[in-house]
Amino acid sequence: MKENYVSLRNLKFLLHEVFSAADLNRFERYSDYDREAFDMTLEAAVQIGDQYLFPIYREMDKNKAYFKDGVVYVHPALRETYKAMADGGWITAIDDYHAGGQQMPAILFNAGVFIFYAANANAASPTQLTVGAANLIKNFGSEQLKATYLPKMNTMEWQGTMALTEPQAGSSLSDLTSTAHPQPDGSYQIKGQKIYISAGDHNAVDNVVHLMLARITGAPAGTRGISLFVVPKYRPEAEGELVYNDVATAGIYGKMGQKGYVAAHLMFGEQDSCTGYLVGEPHHGLSYMFQMMNEARIGTGLLSAGNISGAYYAALKYTHERAQGRHPSNKDLSQEPVLIIEHADVRRMLLLQKSILEGSIALLLQCSYYADLLHVADGQEKEEAHYLLELLTPIAKSFPAEMGTVAISNAMQCLGGAGYTDDFPIEQYYRDIRINAIYEGTTTIHGLDLLGRKIPMAGGKPFSLFVREVQKTLDAALAVGGLEQDVSLLATRLKALHELTLHLMGIASQEKPEVFLADATLYLELFGLVTIGWQWLKQAVTAQQAMTETLSESELSFYAGKIQACAYFMEYELSKGLGLEQRLKSNRRISLETPPSYIN
Amino acid sequence: MKENYVSLRNLKFLLHEVFSAADLNRFERYSDYDREAFDMTLEAAVQIGDQYLFPIYREMDKNKAYFKDGVVYVHPALRETYKAMADGGWITAIDDYHAGGQQMPAILFNAGVFIFYAANANAASPTQLTVGAANLIKNFGSEQLKATYLPKMNTMEWQGTMALTEPQAGSSLSDLTSTAHPQPDGSYQIKGQKIYISAGDHNAVDNVVHLMLARITGAPAGTRGISLFVVPKYRPEAEGELVYNDVATAGIYGKMGQKGYVAAHLMFGEQDSCTGYLVGEPHHGLSYMFQMMNEARIGTGLLSAGNISGAYYAALKYTHERAQGRHPSNKDLSQEPVLIIEHADVRRMLLLQKSILEGSIALLLQCSYYADLLHVADGQEKEEAHYLLELLTPIAKSFPAEMGTVAISNAMQCLGGAGYTDDFPIEQYYRDIRINAIYEGTTTIHGLDLLGRKIPMAGGKPFSLFVREVQKTLDAALAVGGLEQDVSLLATRLKALHELTLHLMGIASQEKPEVFLADATLYLELFGLVTIGWQWLKQAVTAQQAMTETLSESELSFYAGKIQACAYFMEYELSKGLGLEQRLKSNRRISLETPPSYIN
Repeated sequence: MKENYVSLRNLKFLLHEVFSAADLNRFERYSDYDREAFDMTLEAAVQIGDQYLFPIYREMDKNKAYFKDGVVYVHPALRETYKAMADGGWITAIDDYHAGGQQMPAILFNAGVFIFYAANANAASPTQLTVGAANLIKNFGSEQLKATYLPKMNTMEWQGTMALTEPQAGSSLSDLTSTAHPQPDGSYQIKGQKIYISAGDHNAVDNVVHLMLARITGAPAGTRGISLFVVPKYRPEAEGELVYNDVATAGIYGKMGQKGYVAAHLMFGEQDSCTGYLVGEPHHGLSYMFQMMNEARIGTGLLSAGNISGAYYAALKYTHERAQGRHPSNKDLSQEPVLIIEHADVRRMLLLQKSILEGSIALLLQCSYYADLLHVADGQEKEEAHYLLELLTPIAKSFPAEMGTVAISNAMQCLGGAGYTDDFPIEQYYRDIRINAIYEGTTTIHGLDLLGRKIPMAGGKPFSLFVREVQKTLDAALAVGGLEQDVSLLATRLKALHELTLHLMGIASQEKPEVFLADATLYLELFGLVTIGWQWLKQAVTAQQAMTETLSESELSFYAGKIQACAYFMEYELSKGLGLEQRLKSNRRISLETPPSYIN
Repeated sequence: MKENYVSLRNLKFLLHEVFSAADLNRFERYSDYDREAFDMTLEAAVQIGDQYLFPIYREMDKNKAYFKDGVVYVHPALRETYKAMADGGWITAIDDYHAGGQQMPAILFNAGVFIFYAANANAASPTQLTVGAANLIKNFGSEQLKATYLPKMNTMEWQGTMALTEPQAGSSLSDLTSTAHPQPDGSYQIKGQKIYISAGDHNAVDNVVHLMLARITGAPAGTRGISLFVVPKYRPEAEGELVYNDVATAGIYGKMGQKGYVAAHLMFGEQDSCTGYLVGEPHHGLSYMFQMMNEARIGTGLLSAGNISGAYYAALKYTHERAQGRHPSNKDLSQEPVLIIEHADVRRMLLLQKSILEGSIALLLQCSYYADLLHVADGQEKEEAHYLLELLTPIAKSFPAEMGTVAISNAMQCLGGAGYTDDFPIEQYYRDIRINAIYEGTTTIHGLDLLGRKIPMAGGKPFSLFVREVQKTLDAALAVGGLEQDVSLLATRLKALHELTLHLMGIASQEKPEVFLADATLYLELFGLVTIGWQWLKQAVTAQQAMTETLSESELSFYAGKIQACAYFMEYELSKGLGLEQRLKSNRRISLETPPSYIN
């Protein structure tokens, strides 16, 4: 099995050894998922990755999507790729058995999605949009909507989308102005425009089903007046006939990356003949959408992690093949140059990538595990999973996007000038990943979400639970031994984060919210460092325990690599917390109080 | 005058108010350069930028250079652009009057080059390569070489290049294998291949003159056996006839950015009919080339700064035009959205860009000033300028490249989704700047240069001079008043840098060089923070003094902005030094001692 874009060994380590995910089969819903079922599922995902996704990653960039005579053209292999993923059960995997699904745990499903994204995020993303859109219909739609739309979405013959963003509103959803006018038959006449709609139109599917936010005539202003609609590009009428529903594509965006993955500018109802179908109750659209957006945020984290993974294994390969230079103490030019992985700074750059990649995947699987508990557990276990998932979602979305950009930049640097050329895939990963800090809420928005909503939530309960979880890992690390330096580094930063959080909550209680939120982005960055530090220490504990056994050379290297990457993270990355803490404690309100005219 | 890619006000502030650069006219060579001469020169540069360079920046990317039937095609307007720059005197500006030059101080010349790079680095870079190549011929070439090549290079009819890199050697110049075989007439027969040769071949010039490194038959191994040659694409023979010199273009690289600026793969002497002409003495090639490379490193810093400048003013404009969202304490949706520059996090991102941009330009002009003193001063003044320039060159090259990438990423973030599209220029700046951390020595190489060569140089003299210069600025800041917090932050980091440097030199004296050099890249980053902090405090002192006068509103905003950006840098950027210091003091040798097999 080729593993040139993903490490199955790492996924199995995380799922089985760190999270014991197969133990979820103690719950009735997941009772069929033992370790073997997990492994078979992962291997099936890699097979699709190898056969369909990875081979066209570069092609989709070099021959980008284009819009001509009203049609959006994408890579011709995408139709069969979608079919393969649908046939493999990846659109309905998490659904109930009785609805044709596999009741797959989210932690396994997301591991599979991560494999797809590592193989080719631009090809795989549209399937996940369809999963998200279909979930909204399943959870909140009428039986008729389900019967009309789900069968074709489940086969990926029809594309699902999230149609939120409008030109005048951007991140400010309360300013949405698309309208929905009630019709006698219970449907709505839709009018408005949406921008940056991912997979919003393309010729690898027969229809596009938009899950669209709009305001019913007379609805209140702000987020409370927003409703959710199904708005298809082609409206299924009697006998399954498809009628054009006045959803026109104005164009697709020319983007720095993700060139094979369409972002469309859509016009709804320009001819006054666009029909939409209400999902759930009027004015509840945003709360429905947020359920999908929370999943989509984990999904964006997976997307970033996929990009990092592809770039990391490409860089790792290069550093094992390319010989250049000698060690500083070796002046003997008659000796052959060494492989560049022998150079300390190249190793540092590789460890950086490994620590960002595997730390991010760990957190994303951790969040997926909480999502599973939220689904199947009860009482306190469920409640705690809920709070931890709420708290960690902004980090799971933002850390892989922000630090992934840095990781891929380091991958490029490992290749020197070659990394900047399109002879290697890294320049594409570098371009592709950059949107993820903007998608699904910018990093700024997630900073505000974390510090402004999640930290004060339920009297600080989520944060207390987080501190307890990290402390558990610190205790376990002390018990297993050999990790004392890493424990000390993480414990110091955890304590500082705790004190800082109390300090900021003190400001929040005394001044207008602008003040404590002014540098929320830095708080998010700091919180991310401690969170990933925690995930690394968890992995190091597991590895340390495993190394008490007799191991093959490759297994020994695998576990020792985990301990080394943990040490790297604590020493090189977590230490960045020191500067962030100093800044966040400072009383100089620079970002808040600098007059715009001073920025010239 | 349009200022949509550069601030002339800022350049004048730095040149006149911070560096008093016109006082260089106390030296005979620069006696004609008073303030008025400076200002006229800057304005002439902006005129070329406005008329020729800026208008084709995007076009050169969208219609990239291409190679077809043996010809490298570039933007058709480049020929007249080069002519305008040559007619403006920009190829020979620093030359002596008697050689047709203007004896322009480097600090002014580089300010002009920065303007060109801000307008369009991809169009302007080839002229600077020609300047560098011509300088090598002027300084080390025979009278015949000068007479044959300089006139056409001075008019930019002929392109000059630096032909160093070879496929098997990369950064390791000691492994170069191109050969030069002596011919009876005193010339050499050249054979070899060179990669990534900037402006190595293109149809906007009539000939290309390569300043090429190669080994004379029988030369010793390593860097001591390398000689420098002039190798033209077309060889001027009797009566000025041009004969093809067997320099073939194998292709040009497909690059992530700088798509209008060619990087060529060249084959020399495949038909055994490539003639080269020795420059200076045999085996001294690398030392000659290094003189040009030091200038080229400042040039790369200017290139990065130019990209940051273009992106910053584009982002600043957008944040003044785009309205979105409301302040956290304002829940009144009937109020209009605010301009996004009103949001604290957008201001933070703008201040980040401003602080990186203007801090970088200040350092680059500081280095240029030292280069001028090195040229015209005597005794101690000259010696000190030499040491400070040597010490600061790796930072002037690397800081704008590394932190510029971050700055431009923040510019993109200010635009949200729009920034990722090619409707705006920022995505191009983001792609273009990334090569600068690889060009002219990777960041790794510059870390090794700083810590391994410049710090130990002359018993630590350069570093002592640096500490003295920063201390002078700290004293001046205390004297002017109002900057106590910034003084305290910088003084703390300077002291820590000093202690850390002694610590590392202690290791250097006891262990093999691999040990103290293992994290040289981090040391470079830390040194860069203190250096740019110093340049910011210098600017703040000047601004604070200026604000004691009665000022117009715009002038007040300009100076207050300087003080605010200084505070931003100390609070948000310099504070990163804390984490770097902790890591660099740690005794865990992670990058050095992790076995390659653990990185999996």
